Amino acid sequence: MPGFTVDFLPQNRRIRVEPGTTLLEATSMANITLNNLCGGDGICGRCKMIVRQGDAGRSVSAKLTREEIQKGYVLACQLQIYDDLVVEVPEETFAREKLIADEDAERFESGDREFELRPGVEPTPVVRKLFLELDPPTLADNSADHQRLVDAVRRRIGTSSVQTGLKIVASLHDVLRDSGYRVTATIGERSNTYEIMNVEPGDTTERNYMVVVDIGTTTIVAHLVDANAVGTVDAKACFNSGAVYGREVTGRMMAAEKRGIHKLQALLVTDINQLIVRLVEGNGISLRDITVVVCAGNTVMSHFLLGLPTESIRRAPYVPLTVEPSPFRAVEVGIEINPRGLLYSLPGISGWVGSDITAGILATRINESGELSLLIDIGTNGEIVIGNREWLISASASAGPALEGASEQCGMRAEGGAIERVSVVDGDLAYQTIGDKPPKGICGSGIIDLVAKLLEAGIINRSGMMQNGSSDRVERIDGIGRYVLVRKEESRIRKEIFITETDIENVITAKAAIFAAMRILLERLDMEFADIDHFYLAGSFGSYLDIESATAIGLIPNVDRERIEFVGNTSVWGAKIAAFYREARNELDRIRRDTTYYDLMGAADYVEEFQKAMFLPHTDIELFTGAERTERIIHVD
Amino acid sequence: MPGFTVDFLPQNRRIRVEPGTTLLEATSMANITLNNLCGGDGICGRCKMIVRQGDAGRSVSAKLTREEIQKGYVLACQLQIYDDLVVEVPEETFAREKLIADEDAERFESGDREFELRPGVEPTPVVRKLFLELDPPTLADNSADHQRLVDAVRRRIGTSSVQTGLKIVASLHDVLRDSGYRVTATIGERSNTYEIMNVEPGDTTERNYMVVVDIGTTTIVAHLVDANAVGTVDAKACFNSGAVYGREVTGRMMAAEKRGIHKLQALLVTDINQLIVRLVEGNGISLRDITVVVCAGNTVMSHFLLGLPTESIRRAPYVPLTVEPSPFRAVEVGIEINPRGLLYSLPGISGWVGSDITAGILATRINESGELSLLIDIGTNGEIVIGNREWLISASASAGPALEGASEQCGMRAEGGAIERVSVVDGDLAYQTIGDKPPKGICGSGIIDLVAKLLEAGIINRSGMMQNGSSDRVERIDGIGRYVLVRKEESRIRKEIFITETDIENVITAKAAIFAAMRILLERLDMEFADIDHFYLAGSFGSYLDIESATAIGLIPNVDRERIEFVGNTSVWGAKIAAFYREARNELDRIRRDTTYYDLMGAADYVEEFQKAMFLPHTDIELFTGAERTERIIHVD
Repeated sequence: MPGFTVDFLPQNRRIRVEPGTTLLEATSMANITLNNLCGGDGICGRCKMIVRQGDAGRSVSAKLTREEIQKGYVLACQLQIYDDLVVEVPEETFAREKLIADEDAERFESGDREFELRPGVEPTPVVRKLFLELDPPTLADNSADHQRLVDAVRRRIGTSSVQTGLKIVASLHDVLRDSGYRVTATIGERSNTYEIMNVEPGDTTERNYMVVVDIGTTTIVAHLVDANAVGTVDAKACFNSGAVYGREVTGRMMAAEKRGIHKLQALLVTDINQLIVRLVEGNGISLRDITVVVCAGNTVMSHFLLGLPTESIRRAPYVPLTVEPSPFRAVEVGIEINPRGLLYSLPGISGWVGSDITAGILATRINESGELSLLIDIGTNGEIVIGNREWLISASASAGPALEGASEQCGMRAEGGAIERVSVVDGDLAYQTIGDKPPKGICGSGIIDLVAKLLEAGIINRSGMMQNGSSDRVERIDGIGRYVLVRKEESRIRKEIFITETDIENVITAKAAIFAAMRILLERLDMEFADIDHFYLAGSFGSYLDIESATAIGLIPNVDRERIEFVGNTSVWGAKIAAFYREARNELDRIRRDTTYYDLMGAADYVEEFQKAMFLPHTDIELFTGAERTERIIHVD
Repeated sequence: MPGFTVDFLPQNRRIRVEPGTTLLEATSMANITLNNLCGGDGICGRCKMIVRQGDAGRSVSAKLTREEIQKGYVLACQLQIYDDLVVEVPEETFAREKLIADEDAERFESGDREFELRPGVEPTPVVRKLFLELDPPTLADNSADHQRLVDAVRRRIGTSSVQTGLKIVASLHDVLRDSGYRVTATIGERSNTYEIMNVEPGDTTERNYMVVVDIGTTTIVAHLVDANAVGTVDAKACFNSGAVYGREVTGRMMAAEKRGIHKLQALLVTDINQLIVRLVEGNGISLRDITVVVCAGNTVMSHFLLGLPTESIRRAPYVPLTVEPSPFRAVEVGIEINPRGLLYSLPGISGWVGSDITAGILATRINESGELSLLIDIGTNGEIVIGNREWLISASASAGPALEGASEQCGMRAEGGAIERVSVVDGDLAYQTIGDKPPKGICGSGIIDLVAKLLEAGIINRSGMMQNGSSDRVERIDGIGRYVLVRKEESRIRKEIFITETDIENVITAKAAIFAAMRILLERLDMEFADIDHFYLAGSFGSYLDIESATAIGLIPNVDRERIEFVGNTSVWGAKIAAFYREARNELDRIRRDTTYYDLMGAADYVEEFQKAMFLPHTDIELFTGAERTERIIHVD
């Protein structure tokens, strides 16, 4: 292959690349996970590397200091390779936040409350193991091995439709006779039929695990669940490596069109495989014991997972290839569990409302209630569902990752050391970190808190602009205001932790997109916020989100607090219910079919509503009774 | 690889073999199809070859003349290779009867009468093509490509369970848009669900073909059927190449245990692939247009097809691995049709009563009748079913291939030039060949006729022994009598066509096995032949079998002629009905479940009954009113 070599230090990894490949892509090809967040736009400045040998080209990024440039620093996303290079990846650049520390994993567990679908309903996991003691054949009863097994399975699971692959049938002769006709059959559900996936000698029923994955645009969360105990064993999370091609789904779809869907698929599958390996290693089980992976996620991520083209999702009329893929073998997409293990990608609603939302509806049961509910799922997109057991309508607003703590210069995931809570103490801001560790960045819930408290303290105005003289922590660099929450000497990473006016603008944009979407949906339904009985606020914030702050910034309207509930990651929660109960899987399919998708991109008044919401909390202060206090202090610029 | 090379002339093929491989096996490995029939036992003497170079060893076969031995002739099945060889395969040895000439193929068609399951029942082929004109998506209707397609399919076939593989889903983006949403979906039935196997642009519904195969131990028959026209396009047949490992199923099972099932599978799959290629080439269609292969056959052949071990069928309690395999992709076993095409191996009853018999029950409808029927399917095994719509019982007798014209020295398939009918004219025997061509051998129906007429003419006695002086065509060589039906100068192959006492003994053994099986079954049911309303005689005899002769030799009892019907190849006939009608497929499954298998190997009195039937027509002459005439002439030796 013509091209150039790139050697990475300290990993001592060498790869060959085609001319013009960016150094960031090369890093990804070398399986080195970086901390970059902007998707290769040169915005976040987090992909700094040092070129030790070779021609790094002439262009420099404004994100680098003169000192850094003299030392050979480059932004990997901006450097196109036209020479053999030796590159050092500094510690601060390398994978700092890629993996969530084990000690923080419990924050992504969602407890056990959710596993009972309804009182008295027996669990029917998507993959079950049945221990069968068959009668050995005699001349009087010499039915075929396969039929002997299938008849026993049919009696146990009460269904007539059982399929068995050729390899399993071929294996029966030995496994039945060697085990004295005492075997464990692994039974997977595939649409309306069951499949005998595996037949093992003896009783292995005690080892049957499932992995339930929420594929977020920014974060991937994987839960290891025990199909027998109906409980969560462990949880792990990581950043979505696809972010190398863009923070938002649109950039990734463009990358998929340009570079091939399989590049995006490979990154995602590798992330999931790594999470599974960590779950397996940390809990003394084997990959063989995992017989199914159940995935929820937005429709674009589901397409990446399955290797399906997304170009028609990106363009009007926004048509996905599928929202209800059949279950198939995990190995078909490269997911490494039991070789005959299955992959269930749960059903979604449209190109912009995916299975994370159908799972959210299932988890919050808004489809079963006579009362009216509104579910907001805050991720890189903000999806909204309104409805009850009679009807459901959904929409999606492009929020960007600001509310997840991922777009800010000092943003980070909800892990140890992340500032997750900010309060006003004696007119100054105080913060609290996850695990009470030295601060190293601000996570999503912390960002929402921080903006709310800056507004409350009069440090920013309703447009999010820093007020000169409002605090000695306000600085202005190149004309852009910033508030230093943690001074260099106080931080764990020996850097200031701050929020800029640009960061705040991103937060305002995100919440405005979501709020406007709610308003448009309600308007179409001829309803008002007062008609909504339950507001469910969902998202991957770990265990904490402050409803007051969310209201203060105008993410949600100022209604009775009892009507608002933060419900956490409903995507993984709902996916787990689906993994455990057949009724839930059937229900998901009904939700898919019966939920109307309303396309905001076709709504002429959406932009107007969005503009009205581009203030803190909103231009229409009447919507936010509790915001009157800040109104007294701050004026609109 | 250590070993020796074998060069075959005139094919100019070279292969390498391990020391000790027989030359017959080497021939099979070189894909040269021979005419041998005895399965490598050195009995038939048909695998003669000439060793041109190399050491052929010292042993010689009594099947060779001194002149032949001097010329370098060997029997390939008897020569173990311990030297590099150059071998010539004489024309008479090479594949003379492997392929049935096209002009004879029509004899294996079974007409169109059978395709109507019941008046008014719409055909529901196992694979259907649907031309769909979908509405292109709009903002108001932007459902996923996959769901748009599946909804249309569901409406057309009236089912909710439709699966679609990942590759098909991935292909939809282009195929729908390029075709203006006018596509043809190929829908296959898999157990209780349907699968979208293929989606093509435009209307391709006019090209949808199925191949229906009857896998006999001795002969394989393949019919090309048009799924739209519900009719047979063409039929081809060939010898089953597995015969290289034994004439009967037991020898082949032993070979499978010794050499690996995949060797037997490969031979069978190659046979079927070659038949398919001939069907395709002869009818101007493409392999792509064939979307399904439906196979019927005895359970051992079905196991070979699927590559399943047969060792437990061979030993008590005679347990097969499966009698109801799920449909799967044809490519999984190596059958070459449309890459996503399906293979249906129809359900059988037990290790010794296979899907050829369930298909036979379906074809003769004995399971629907209030009257009592008896079905005999004469192949290398003779299977018997007795019953009505209330109950069905089945058994299997090991007949050997004598009644198929395959064990005799002068036996051959029912093709042009085969003697198919023998009559007594002026005290001498006259014959009639297929196509009125010069005679070259005797096919199954001719053998049965010949034995009957020899008995009638007093040339053999009731034990099958030649009566000295009964005809000037009776000779005795090495003490074994033979009757020369065609003198050398009269035959096409410039050889005598004759039948020996050994040949006749094989016929008697075969018919005795079948007759005894009928007697035992009736005895167990406390019934007599007189209780049977319909006798159905089935087998791959081409279009002709003389009921009188079958009765005269004691293959079937001497009952009212109106009660006896020769129904031809009911295996391929029933398989075709199953290929065309879902109701028939469901019925086959009921037949499988509801038919009792009676194991003759466990019947103490079977051997006694068998011995009683070892005469022409039987020791108990009362059973054969029409046999009194021969009784007057012939006495038991």
